[in-house]
Order: sequence, then C-alpha cells, then structure tokens
Amino acid sequence: MTVRFGVLGAGRIGKVHAKAVSGNPDAKLVAVADAMADAATAVATQYAAEVRSISQIEVANDIDAVIICTPTDTHADLIERFSRAGKAIFCEKPVDLDAQRVRECLKVVEETGAKLMVGFNRRFDPHFMAVRKAIDDGRIGTVEMVTITSRDPGAPPVDYIKRSGGIFRDMTIHDFDMARFLLGEEISSVSAHAAVLVDPAIGEAGDYDSATVILETASGRQAVITNSRRATYGYDQRIEVHGSKGVVSAENQRPVSIEIANGDGYTRPPLHDFFMTRYTEAYANEIASFISAIEKGSAISPNGTDGLLALQLADAALASIKTGKRVKP
Amino acid sequence: MTVRFGVLGAGRIGKVHAKAVSGNPDAKLVAVADAMADAATAVATQYAAEVRSISQIEVANDIDAVIICTPTDTHADLIERFSRAGKAIFCEKPVDLDAQRVRECLKVVEETGAKLMVGFNRRFDPHFMAVRKAIDDGRIGTVEMVTITSRDPGAPPVDYIKRSGGIFRDMTIHDFDMARFLLGEEISSVSAHAAVLVDPAIGEAGDYDSATVILETASGRQAVITNSRRATYGYDQRIEVHGSKGVVSAENQRPVSIEIANGDGYTRPPLHDFFMTRYTEAYANEIASFISAIEKGSAISPNGTDGLLALQLADAALASIKTGKRVKP
Amino acid sequence: MTVRFGVLGAGRIGKVHAKAVSGNPDAKLVAVADAMADAATAVATQYAAEVRSISQIEVANDIDAVIICTPTDTHADLIERFSRAGKAIFCEKPVDLDAQRVRECLKVVEETGAKLMVGFNRRFDPHFMAVRKAIDDGRIGTVEMVTITSRDPGAPPVDYIKRSGGIFRDMTIHDFDMARFLLGEEISSVSAHAAVLVDPAIGEAGDYDSATVILETASGRQAVITNSRRATYGYDQRIEVHGSKGVVSAENQRPVSIEIANGDGYTRPPLHDFFMTRYTEAYANEIASFISAIEKGSAISPNGTDGLLALQLADAALASIKTGKRVKP
Amino acid sequence: MTVRFGVLGAGRIGKVHAKAVSGNPDAKLVAVADAMADAATAVATQYAAEVRSISQIEVANDIDAVIICTPTDTHADLIERFSRAGKAIFCEKPVDLDAQRVRECLKVVEETGAKLMVGFNRRFDPHFMAVRKAIDDGRIGTVEMVTITSRDPGAPPVDYIKRSGGIFRDMTIHDFDMARFLLGEEISSVSAHAAVLVDPAIGEAGDYDSATVILETASGRQAVITNSRRATYGYDQRIEVHGSKGVVSAENQRPVSIEIANGDGYTRPPLHDFFMTRYTEAYANEIASFISAIEKGSAISPNGTDGLLALQLADAALASIKTGKRVKP
Repeated sequence: MTVRFGVLGAGRIGKVHAKAVSGNPDAKLVAVADAMADAATAVATQYAAEVRSISQIEVANDIDAVIICTPTDTHADLIERFSRAGKAIFCEKPVDLDAQRVRECLKVVEETGAKLMVGFNRRFDPHFMAVRKAIDDGRIGTVEMVTITSRDPGAPPVDYIKRSGGIFRDMTIHDFDMARFLLGEEISSVSAHAAVLVDPAIGEAGDYDSATVILETASGRQAVITNSRRATYGYDQRIEVHGSKGVVSAENQRPVSIEIANGDGYTRPPLHDFFMTRYTEAYANEIASFISAIEKGSAISPNGTDGLLALQLADAALASIKTGKRVKP
Repeated sequence: MTVRFGVLGAGRIGKVHAKAVSGNPDAKLVAVADAMADAATAVATQYAAEVRSISQIEVANDIDAVIICTPTDTHADLIERFSRAGKAIFCEKPVDLDAQRVRECLKVVEETGAKLMVGFNRRFDPHFMAVRKAIDDGRIGTVEMVTITSRDPGAPPVDYIKRSGGIFRDMTIHDFDMARFLLGEEISSVSAHAAVLVDPAIGEAGDYDSATVILETASGRQAVITNSRRATYGYDQRIEVHGSKGVVSAENQRPVSIEIANGDGYTRPPLHDFFMTRYTEAYANEIASFISAIEKGSAISPNGTDGLLALQLADAALASIKTGKRVKP
Repeated sequence: MTVRFGVLGAGRIGKVHAKAVSGNPDAKLVAVADAMADAATAVATQYAAEVRSISQIEVANDIDAVIICTPTDTHADLIERFSRAGKAIFCEKPVDLDAQRVRECLKVVEETGAKLMVGFNRRFDPHFMAVRKAIDDGRIGTVEMVTITSRDPGAPPVDYIKRSGGIFRDMTIHDFDMARFLLGEEISSVSAHAAVLVDPAIGEAGDYDSATVILETASGRQAVITNSRRATYGYDQRIEVHGSKGVVSAENQRPVSIEIANGDGYTRPPLHDFFMTRYTEAYANEIASFISAIEKGSAISPNGTDGLLALQLADAALASIKTGKRVKP
Repeated sequence: MTVRFGVLGAGRIGKVHAKAVSGNPDAKLVAVADAMADAATAVATQYAAEVRSISQIEVANDIDAVIICTPTDTHADLIERFSRAGKAIFCEKPVDLDAQRVRECLKVVEETGAKLMVGFNRRFDPHFMAVRKAIDDGRIGTVEMVTITSRDPGAPPVDYIKRSGGIFRDMTIHDFDMARFLLGEEISSVSAHAAVLVDPAIGEAGDYDSATVILETASGRQAVITNSRRATYGYDQRIEVHGSKGVVSAENQRPVSIEIANGDGYTRPPLHDFFMTRYTEAYANEIASFISAIEKGSAISPNGTDGLLALQLADAALASIKTGKRVKP
C-alpha cells in the first residue's frame, strides 16, 4: 500500500515534510497547498506533485493523509475539517494555544475516528529514542529523575513571540512532552520560575526568556527542565534519566566533531545552530512512523491527547509563576 | 609565621585535616583532642603532636587555631568557647542544625572578633574553583543559570539520617552554598520538591532521598539542584553555569580514566565512590586557604554567615515542600 | 547546466552513487548498466532512469559523465573507452591493481583530455575535511606528523582477499591517500611491518591482516598508519595531525551517542559497523564535488595521478616487508 | 619492618623520591647525599634526615636501601658500589648510555645478588596500570597492536641533549619500556624514522626531535611509537592496546577538567605541562612498589634487565635510521 499525501503549507517545515514523504518508499506526495501560489508551486515541482487548494485536497479521492503546516491559528479548524473528510492527519504542534479549543477539536477527532499525530519530532531523534529504549530495556531500573536542558541558539523575533503563546506553550512544550515520554507516569504537580535575562523586549512583550521547571508525578518521580532563548554555543539539547540501577544520557550533537589543541587548550566546534539540522533525522523518522502507523492500522503516537497534556503543563507552569505555588496540571 | 593548630575530634575528617596541617609548610600540628583516647593518640603519634583535652587546648598559649571535627551538636558551643579564647576557628559544617542557634553563635563570633571558617570544602575543589574563575574572568558573561547535579553513591545509615537534620540540611546544604558561590547574587526565593524513591526506611525516618530545588535571585537568575542519595555509578558531582556569553561546566571525576571498547561498546570506569577521595585536593586546599588567611590577616571565606545562609536555604526548601509554595529564605 | 549520468555497475556502491546523482539538483541519472539485468532494472526504476548497455552509454549523446562501479579488473579498460568517448569519468578505486597498467591508462586519459576522478571517498568526509581545513587555515602551524588509525569491523571473505591485491592495495590504499591529503608533501620513503594475527586463512591466501606503516617525506614529515582487518568495537577510523602550533584530530563516529552508567562504569554504544553508514555523507559529497567540477570546468581532485601514487605506496609497503628495508615509492 | 633509605642526589627528582620515602609508613629517610651541600641540607632538614656523604652511606649500618638520583654517568659505578655494599638499589633510568657498560654493571648486580630497580616510573601510573590490568584480565583478548603517543611539552636545552645519548636513549626509552610492558612478548625487529622538525639546533647537536618507530615481536605483534620534543598543548602521553576481543586506551591527563563553550566552540584546558605533575602518582607508587618488594623479598620489577632491553631497543632504532633497514635489537 502507498499512502498518498497532501501537504498543507509549503513553508520551511512543509518543505521538510514534503521531502520526507517523497523519499519514503511507502508514500507518495500528491498535492501541495499554500496561500502563496509560488511557494506551493516550488515544492510541487520539486517532487512532481500538483498544486491544489485546501478545499480540493479535502475532497480528493486520491489523497489518504494530510500534513498540516499552516499557521497555528488554523490548526484546530483544519484538523476538524480533515477528520470529517476521513483523512489521516499529521499536524505540527500545537493543535491550538488554548486548551479548551484543543479539547473541542479532539472531540471531533474522537467522534470521527480520525487518525491524528501531533508533531513532537524530538520523540523520533535517534539519540533520544535510544535513551527511551535503554529505559524500556531496564538498563537503568526504575525511573526516578529526568533532567532536560533545552536552550535555543537565539531568540525568535519579538513579533513571533507575541503570537507564540509564550515560552512555555511555544518552546518548553517540547520539553514537557519529552518529560512525559521519559517519566513513565503522568505529572501531578508543576513548579516554575522564569525571568527575562536575555532580551528586555521579550519582557515587554509579556513573555520570559529564561525558565526552570520542576515536574513531579504521583509516586514522586521528578523532572527538571532548564530553558533559555539564547545559547552562544549552539542548539543545546540534552536529556538525562536517573534510575534505581543507573543513569542514561544523550549528549549534544555537532555537525563536525574534530578537536584542535594548542597552548590555549582543546577546542571542539560549536553545536548545531538550527533545529532543522539538529533534528534532520527526527523529522524523517517522524513522518516514517506516521506512514507506518497508517499502513499497519496501528496506534498513532504522539496523538492529540499528548498534544493536549503538554499544553496543560505549559498552562500549569504559567499559573505556578503567577501564583508562586505548586500547580496541578 | 607558623600557625599552630589543635585538632578537636580525631575521626575520619579530623584525620584528613590533621594531615593537611602537617603537610603545610606554614603550619604545625601541636595537639589533638578526642573523647576516644586511642583515636587521639593515633593521630598525634603519626604527626608528632601531643594529645590534649579540649579544655587544655582552649587555654594553650602555643596554639593559634583549632579545627572542630567533633559531632555536630557540639559545634556551636565550641565555636563560642574558642572565639572567647581568641583562637582562629575552622569548623566543619554545619555550625548547628537550628538557624536560631547559629545566629546566637555568630553573634559571639562577631563580638569577640574571632576568625571563623566554615567547612564548605567544595569551594576549594580545583575544578569548581576553575569554574568560578572562568566566571570571574568574564568568560561566560553575566551568570544566568546554575545547574548542580549532586548524587551520593549510597545513602548513609538511617540512624545517621535521623540525626542529620534531613536531606536539605545535611546533603543539599553543600549545593546551596555552591549555588551562592556561583550565582553572584543572594537568593530571593526557593521552590522544592522531594520524595522517597531510594529507600522507604528513609521516609519512615521522616526524611527524603530524592530532591529537586529551584533557587531564584532578585534579578531572576536561577539555580537548579538535583539530589539523590544513591547513584550506582559513583559520586556524581557536576556543576554548570550558563551565562550571556557562554557556558562553563565541571565534569565528573574518576580515579582511573581508561576506556575499553568491544562489541558491547565503549566503557569507562565508574566515578569516585567516596567523598573523601573525590575531594582530596579540596580538603587540602581548604585548610591551606584558612592558614593563609590567618597569616595574612585577610578575610575568611566561607565564613559563619555563609554557613547561616546555606542553612536558611535548607529551611526554606523544607518549607516549600510543606506549603507547596515558593518560599523566601 | 545539468550533468547527465550513466552508472556502470548497479551493485552496492553503484546504488549509493545512483542515489547521490538523483538527489543532486545539478545532475540527472539517465541510464544504468549492469551485466545482471535485474540489478540494472531495479536501480533504473527507482530513479526513473533507463537500462542501457555499456556500449549504448558509450555512444549516447544524452550522457555527459559515467560512474564506474564495475569489478576492478574492468576499470582501466572502461576508463580508456569512456575517455575516448569524451565522457567525464568517476571511477571507484583502484584504477587497477598493477601500477604499470594504471600508468598506461592515465596516458590515455591525458591524451584524450578526459576528466577523471578516483573514488577516494574519505577526502569528502565532513570530519576529515574539517581536519584538512584546520591545517589549511594555519590552526596547527606546519604539519609534522600524521597518525591514521584504520581498522575494519571484520575481514572480508578470503575469496575476496585473494582477488584484492592484498591489504595494502585494498585497504591501506585509502590511508595512503589520506596521508598524502594531509602531509602536504610527497612521500619519499616507506617502512612497513605486517602479520597475520586475525585469521590464518588470510595468511594462507598470501596476505596479511594486521599492518603498520611509516611514511616519510623529503623534509622529514612522518605519517604512521595502523591497520587491522578486525575491530570488535566497530569501524575504527581516526586521524590526527600534529604540527608546530598544535594538533587536530577527528574522532570516531557512532550512529547513536548516548551513555549509560551504572556500577560497571560508563558505556557508550559501538561505532558504525559498516563503511557505507560511516561514510554516507562522504559518498554524497564526493559525487557533488565531481558534478561541481564538471559544471565549473575546474580541476578534478582526487584524480588519476592520486590513484597511481597511492598504489605506488602500497607497492612500496609490500616491498619494504619483503626486503626488510625502507623503500622509495 | 621499616626500610631505611639514603637518597643520593638532592636535585629535582631526588626531592620527589625523598618525599615519597618520607610519606611511606613502611620506610624512613635516614640520609641525603649531594655534591652541593645546600641541596642535601635542604632536603634533609625538610624530612628530619641527616646529610651524609655517599661513602658514609655506603658503609652505614642504619641504611637498607639507596635511591640513585645523581648524574647519569655515575649510575653504573654507584650501582656496582652499592651492590657490593649489600644495599637494595633504586636507580633512575638509564643505568648507562652504553649497553656494554650496562651489561658489565648488571653482572656485578647478579654476582652480588643485589636488588636493583630501574626507574621506569610510567609503569606505575594508575591509568597505565589499569590498561595493563585490563589486558591481564583478558578484557581485550590477545594483544595485537600497541600505539604509544609520547610528546614532550618542549625540548630540553641543547646542552642537555648533547649529553643525553639522543632522543631514543633519553626520551623514547620510556616508550620502549612501555611497549615491552604491554606487548607481552619480546621485540624481534625495529624500524625507525626520525627528523629534525622542531629546532635546527637539535639537529646540529647530532640528534632528532621527531621520531616514529615500529616494533615487532616474533609472533607479529606490532607497536608504534610517535615522539615529538614539542607539543604546544602540553605533555601528551597516550597508550592504546588493540587485541582480538577489543581495545583499551588511556587518555591524556589534565590538571583541571572544566569545559567552556561559546560561539567559538567547546574548550577544555591544556594537559599537564610537566612530567612531574603528570606522573605525581606514578613516582609515589614506584617507590612504594620498591619498598614493598624489599619488605616481602619479592621480585623487583622493572629490574636491570628491563633497563638493558630498553636501551638495546634505542640502539636498534638508531641503527635502523642509519642503515634504512629493519634491525634486530
């Protein structure tokens, strides 16, 4: 079986997914839609697909699945439309910035029985997958503490930040999902601290750029997340899981791994400086997993509920900062 | 000038300090006191010193300074006595488990003008000193976030735990001091989570064995501390400081640094399994710093106030857990 | 301009190059030839190319360049034929196992003015390229010593070894080329030792499985190569260049870079276990360089002379072992 | 039993050994001799020993063992005198620069039944000891290839070089001993290359500053040694042993192991810059081993024959360079 795809949104991430679909032997890119005709045409031409409108894709008989890469405020609507149209849906995170809206949307997904995958790409990074596998294989015993260090090379434009829902819903949300992926239990309380240390303009936009969060589960397992919107040395993405029998960690990745030494010491190059090069394999694996689940009719993961739970943790972190209290998500 | 020493308490840590004094060209070990005569004699013999009682040392004209290594509940009293006796005092942490008692004790220190150093040995670890120097040299710009991972190889006996004041006053207190040492600003709020994951007996003794703490300063700098009473791979002691221009970290230390590779992968030996071998150099440096400060008449650091402030952070962490709130120390 | 390609030989390495051509925006895979019709068809189908015979490709007007991936003993003949046919030629190493035959072949290349690239893929590994760049940028001063560690995960079948020309012409030849690539001077003498330590059957086939070689240049620069046909921990490929101002090294690569620690120590996964996964990027970069050189009309590197010089070093190493002397290549 | 020591020569290395003796609970430093009275007095005072002449030590009844740290050209004579005087002898390497003289000297040692240890301190480095232990424990199977990288931070004065016997007898001799220590078989042939790349003055003094050597055993095991008299990044001392089941390596050591990262990459401090700080533990372990062997009456290792065999390898390396041939030591 070949899964036939439409890609909605031909921007940066749409291109990444279009490439992944085209390179997958079990999938075919049929159509690309974008409000900007040129963008859609460029992608369609490169992969021998057609340019179509979203409405055309919605009713197309030759399309089994869609990948939603349009602006965030269209995600929930499109998920509902394509759920009703009977298509399998891959949607970039988040489903929506408002948890209530997400719940409504997921209700439609449930009612229609649609398959929905949410784009937490980091679950598909080979190194993080290997961490999870080490846990599943019993290599570290019972999970006790998860440490996630997640720092961006640089802050996005303030205009973006204003529309982003804030650092917890935009950036930490990946780490909330990773914490859930690794803790093995649902989170029962959240404590958060945040500040503006990188750029005052971010504070003026009502957001933070530096944050630390503790998550705790009912049995007392703890996760710590450390975020900064700026790391001069590259895209800092580390996880560590401490358990009863040992610890497993995934180191940072760099494009080139040479070392130069002289009287000033030993120097290795900086890390990847961009999430797309850091997570190249993760993006490809993610789409491959979606295609495989459709083909096999197996469960989709991460699904809409995973998207909702991560969002609720973001809301809880924000509430913790505002109230100075530990908050139940 | 040679600084002439009496060591009070000839147990494990007393021996370490007696050796450091003896090996220091600017110091001389004159007397050793211990309630166990054999213990005192053994140390005195090894370093050609005399066995004396604490009272004898208190009035001795040939002793300039004492090192207090007796049980915790005698610390504050001895500090007061030797302050009044005009001796320079090095006291193992903590001054006392009760912050009010510490305040009273420090009042005596202040009134008598005594020199008091508190044994936060980790400030003298060469690797952590190098981290601090990197900060002071401006290598990472303004400090923003401190991450401290501190895990013991194994939990102490439950009997010890009962008398210890609890994980925050006994174990995390070193990390609280290290956070203060690195943050460059006083801490204005504390959030903590803790659980019993390692050994139920610790919980039955009213304590925790796994804890995570966020510390925040007035300007928003944040520190995260992660503690466990058990790390199967050794004595896990790492610090990382993230700043506006970069990050500096101190890696774990192991006694032997070979690597063996075969079909199962690349393996390096575990870490040090004991705080005394991990911090050998730190203990020697600490006493050297004390001797040097006495000789030069320069300020002692860390002093009694440092001891008090770390204890207050421990109390605040405990209060945060009990109340579920961010607590001002 | 689009460079139009024929691939000769649709085996393992032919497939790699066919994929690289197809994925390159400046190239087009037009035809595939293979004595095994099924093999040719499979590759042609996957990349929408035609199956043609070598003779058809030789006279085709719609083909600018060929990639020779046929058996070694056909290389020199095919290079001569396609030189005369006016095609640009990429040929897998070696041109031939006999240096005299290579010289004759390169004469035809020279006379016809054909463009010939020889497949020393390691020059295009991003990490090794970065080592070379560090040298070219003056980061380590004048090159003095090159150390190349090159060990295969496991020995090839003895049947292959019998046809391979021996370890120096088959395996070390890559290291000879790398030494030349990094030394910055031609090699003036060779000393070699070799033994059968891995598998007696290799010795019975007249070859060695373990070898060490010293190369020296006229000015006294030295390179050391260490080879084994078996490394239990994976495909061991390291280079280090020591210079007057410092040293630069390229570490080994592994598919997954996690670390697990427990009472037995810290463990990282083994290295890549296959040259094709280890050098994935190198293969793609190599073909991209060939395409770019054709498009720009710029010099090809590594060329036929590079192929010949590496082969001469292999012959010299063998002569050194037989005679017990330092040999001039 | 307490082993009572005389130290002959109170220079740099004499002080190191005097300290090791003093700090050893099973030994006592009784006397120090030096042609420079001040030097002897300084060491004797520090460790509460006496200043005596070499002749006085020779006949002293209260001295069991001597440590010879005098100039090289006195070593063989002193070994003979103290062998006849019935003292146990630790002698800094080399016994002599002339192999024939060493043989004569060892004859006296044999005839008198004296205990003689030669100061190949690196055998007692904890990391190299762990490498050897890994081999002995069967962790890497049968040894096949040893790689030794040994580079000094900087060249000694040319005056020293003129008296040193040349790079192979002065510097590489440690590596020859290490190769023997690790190979597990005696060496049957030597090929060497050397050049003057660091300082022309070294060449004018008739020596080399950069060398590579291959050693081979009868069964075909190979060792490669790489030497330079100058490494800008510190004292580069690495060993790696490749075997049938795996590989074991000892990494370089640095005094401080922090890492600083910023836009220029990740930087760790340089290595130790002096052999005495690099091998601090090795020197102490070496003397402890000597004391223990005397006390237990067990075999001394490394002994005079080890000293001779390493010297013969140095001579063979030199002969290989002069003749351009593989040389039997």
